[in-house]
Amino acid sequence: MKCKRCGALAAVKLPSHHAGFCPECFEVFFKRQVETAVRRHAMIQPGEKVLVAVSGGKDSLALMRVLSDLGHDVEGLHVHLGIPDSSDPVCAKTEAYFQDNGFTLHVLRMEDVGLAIPAVKAAVRRPICAVCGKIKRHYFNRFAYENGFAALATGHNLDDEVARLFANVLRWDAAYLGGQGPVLPAEGRFVRKIKPLYRVTEFETAAYCFFKGIDHWKAGCPYSGGASFTGHKKLFADLEDRSPGQKVAFYEAFLDRGRPHFAAPNQAGGETLAPCQTCGYPSSSEICGVCRIRAQVEAKAAS
Amino acid sequence: MKCKRCGALAAVKLPSHHAGFCPECFEVFFKRQVETAVRRHAMIQPGEKVLVAVSGGKDSLALMRVLSDLGHDVEGLHVHLGIPDSSDPVCAKTEAYFQDNGFTLHVLRMEDVGLAIPAVKAAVRRPICAVCGKIKRHYFNRFAYENGFAALATGHNLDDEVARLFANVLRWDAAYLGGQGPVLPAEGRFVRKIKPLYRVTEFETAAYCFFKGIDHWKAGCPYSGGASFTGHKKLFADLEDRSPGQKVAFYEAFLDRGRPHFAAPNQAGGETLAPCQTCGYPSSSEICGVCRIRAQVEAKAAS
Repeated sequence: MKCKRCGALAAVKLPSHHAGFCPECFEVFFKRQVETAVRRHAMIQPGEKVLVAVSGGKDSLALMRVLSDLGHDVEGLHVHLGIPDSSDPVCAKTEAYFQDNGFTLHVLRMEDVGLAIPAVKAAVRRPICAVCGKIKRHYFNRFAYENGFAALATGHNLDDEVARLFANVLRWDAAYLGGQGPVLPAEGRFVRKIKPLYRVTEFETAAYCFFKGIDHWKAGCPYSGGASFTGHKKLFADLEDRSPGQKVAFYEAFLDRGRPHFAAPNQAGGETLAPCQTCGYPSSSEICGVCRIRAQVEAKAAS
Repeated sequence: MKCKRCGALAAVKLPSHHAGFCPECFEVFFKRQVETAVRRHAMIQPGEKVLVAVSGGKDSLALMRVLSDLGHDVEGLHVHLGIPDSSDPVCAKTEAYFQDNGFTLHVLRMEDVGLAIPAVKAAVRRPICAVCGKIKRHYFNRFAYENGFAALATGHNLDDEVARLFANVLRWDAAYLGGQGPVLPAEGRFVRKIKPLYRVTEFETAAYCFFKGIDHWKAGCPYSGGASFTGHKKLFADLEDRSPGQKVAFYEAFLDRGRPHFAAPNQAGGETLAPCQTCGYPSSSEICGVCRIRAQVEAKAAS
């Protein structure tokens, strides 16, 4: 197979785009997909500072690289979770990548705010992944808001988005369907949330990292049973195999023709929010979920 | 495994209902599912005559039997398509079943209305299955309307409905999503359309026929490449394997929470209809699709 752009030997085949690319042209393709996503949904205005949520995995490192290459003013934030044998090496690897590339990285240590994940896990009874996700979302948003970033960019790719959309469709959850999309506008102390990788697949992001020599963290979290929506992703992989292009068509058709039938996207998920009486960030109850988790951790430590 | 109702040895296992049943109790379960569907969606009012669209396959014969057993006033209509080596034996088998059970069967021969399917196939360029479906829908509705039936019942089962819903969701086709459901209300010369089997699966309908000794037609149509939505059905079978009950939950959630966001169900699929100038039945153009097909067949025969 030959590269669709330059005619050289193709290194990657993309049936959904009826194309194969050599490594250099694949990079052009990948950047254009992200550029299209950013432009089509007005994700970033000229001069705006963007914070990238950086886990250290392939998606977040690729996102940092491509947004920077596209000329955007980006910095990264890594949340150090305090998990033994995991958080330190992930953080060190992430810091090395940022240093090598001349990118700015901020690190927030959950231990410093009384929310080291092992202590949280010991104190709360709910599944730790949901709780950890809530904490990370809170601090990513809060850091962006307090440091003048116009938007928070996350590395969700097409497979993540399609699997989440399918989960919402299976339940016909109108609030979630209305709220799902590549952009959530800013709202009070919520900064704008953007997903510039929503048009590229997990495979494409992995190929981008491979060709660019991006040495990302590959091991999973020791507390997690595996990636989310694995079954739904497999299901859409089968569908894509039978009908290349189906995944992106399904998601774009949802944005064009499905979502308008549901409530307008908002960060509250249809709930009425007021400032948390402890931290001041938007909450559906008097004390926000993160402040309540911290209180549980403190109570456990005191017991 | 024991029967959930009577404790005898179970002959069929239904993970989605956390149950197994012996043949007798399975029949009770099956009838109750249909009874629930009919009652919940007010499909049939007391004293109404219902016409069952009878292909001769398992779904239509099971539907005839169960509606009759539930005390409804039902008759069948079989459309004889005029396909060599197929339509005659299908029709004979269907007639034998109706006679053995004391049911009333009407037979409409497409040859008699100038629409024998082989002639149609030779005259039109579109895929024959879509054209044949259009012709059958026209005559089922027309016969019901002209003979005082309040509703036309078809044998669509849960698998058919879920696969069709998924196809509509993949395209986010708002008119089709609004129009999909177990009941379409009557509208002008369109009689009410009902799907009393929408809560039972293909497997359950096959098991019902097996236990009741219903000898249905098993071979496919010689003109068809196979059943519709085979891929989508496989996909939902895998999903059901992982999460028993997911199929019916998805469909019922759509009816409760999804469909209300789309246009109200109507038989025109969002189009404006007026009487066909040839046959008088509702059409989106001056001459309806079926009358235009007949004109093509006549032109071909004259050429």
